[in-house]
Amino acid sequence: MLVYTTMKNFQPSPHTTLKRLPERGSFDRDTVNAILDEAFICHVGFAVDGQPFVIPTSYARVGDQLFIHGSAASRMLRSLSKGIPVCVTVTLVDGLVLARSAFHHSINYRSVVILGMAKPLTDEREKMAALHAFMEHIVPGRWGEVRQPDEQELKKTTVLSLPLTEVSAKVRTGPPKDDEADHALPVWSGELPLHVLAGMPLADAHTPASQQVPEYILRYDRRKK
Amino acid sequence: MLVYTTMKNFQPSPHTTLKRLPERGSFDRDTVNAILDEAFICHVGFAVDGQPFVIPTSYARVGDQLFIHGSAASRMLRSLSKGIPVCVTVTLVDGLVLARSAFHHSINYRSVVILGMAKPLTDEREKMAALHAFMEHIVPGRWGEVRQPDEQELKKTTVLSLPLTEVSAKVRTGPPKDDEADHALPVWSGELPLHVLAGMPLADAHTPASQQVPEYILRYDRRKK
Repeated sequence: MLVYTTMKNFQPSPHTTLKRLPERGSFDRDTVNAILDEAFICHVGFAVDGQPFVIPTSYARVGDQLFIHGSAASRMLRSLSKGIPVCVTVTLVDGLVLARSAFHHSINYRSVVILGMAKPLTDEREKMAALHAFMEHIVPGRWGEVRQPDEQELKKTTVLSLPLTEVSAKVRTGPPKDDEADHALPVWSGELPLHVLAGMPLADAHTPASQQVPEYILRYDRRKK
Repeated sequence: MLVYTTMKNFQPSPHTTLKRLPERGSFDRDTVNAILDEAFICHVGFAVDGQPFVIPTSYARVGDQLFIHGSAASRMLRSLSKGIPVCVTVTLVDGLVLARSAFHHSINYRSVVILGMAKPLTDEREKMAALHAFMEHIVPGRWGEVRQPDEQELKKTTVLSLPLTEVSAKVRTGPPKDDEADHALPVWSGELPLHVLAGMPLADAHTPASQQVPEYILRYDRRKK
């Protein structure tokens, strides 16, 4: 019997070990999962004939898997389906770090880098479950309200699964770290937090005025998760 | 005499020509520049021994050049300095597109993909000018207030320049595109705009209470540019 155990932390690999500023690195699973669950856009990197490409796309995490999806006709998904090395990076920008010296300016951020190979889901029930998880990740509460994918739509959609095994997080928080000699300079220094906030929902032309905006849209906030 | 002419638009290449949804693609220089000037984080993709990496970093555009920078000790900058193929992608997420069918959900976004090879700046004045442009791009108004880089700091900083030649933009805007058969479904549908907004500036421990927060920080808004 195969007993599958999720380790608390990821194991560092030569590719995910930080050589500089190691204090910013983390292999802690909770740190990684919190970043992956707050964001919903990743940047997918892969090379074709030696030329790297970086493509933004949405994703969802379910347990130890990261799902990305798209049209079965997509070049990116067809390339990745062949089982080539991929790097998926997720970045949250938390604010500007404003120092007294130009040199010590920085950015507060949280990022996750995932290396591995992705595999297409072939089982229709698995694909449907992944698409459900996708919507639950990006717009929690909506799946039950909308028309779910029919057979044709499922066929037109490729879902790739990337195992979360070679994974690392990098986090910078807190104030600038100026040289002591600069501390007395009369320059306002500190942090300027940046947030992603939802604006006013904008109904489309086919939504009657009597149709109430759902609570999960009115209260949409990635930071609550 | 070399006369340098900036063409209005970028020329499509086999790598930057969209095969699917070509209506989302653009080679228009103004579209590209507007995206590059609103964002300040890019994702840099490159391969080392066949393994792709995607690293988030800040950037600035000056004319037909994109600058990235960092510690001279950075693995990414040392790899790129060798003149290997790179892909730099910039993404702005403008909102969620909420359709009546799961299948037609989407995201409104603007992205730019730049392919090419980066070169380190070697001239100290060029490096200084690039760092000035960097700060002017990320925090306009601040460069003149802060202590500028000294010789040591300049030496410790690598600045790479990537020419904007093989470049394309991709943009999705507007409401969902549901199947007509779904239009009568009683599901609120439309767009939920997302914005990056600055929070309250947080002074660090060395900033006296008497030090006023500069206007350019109080009014910080990427969208104004």
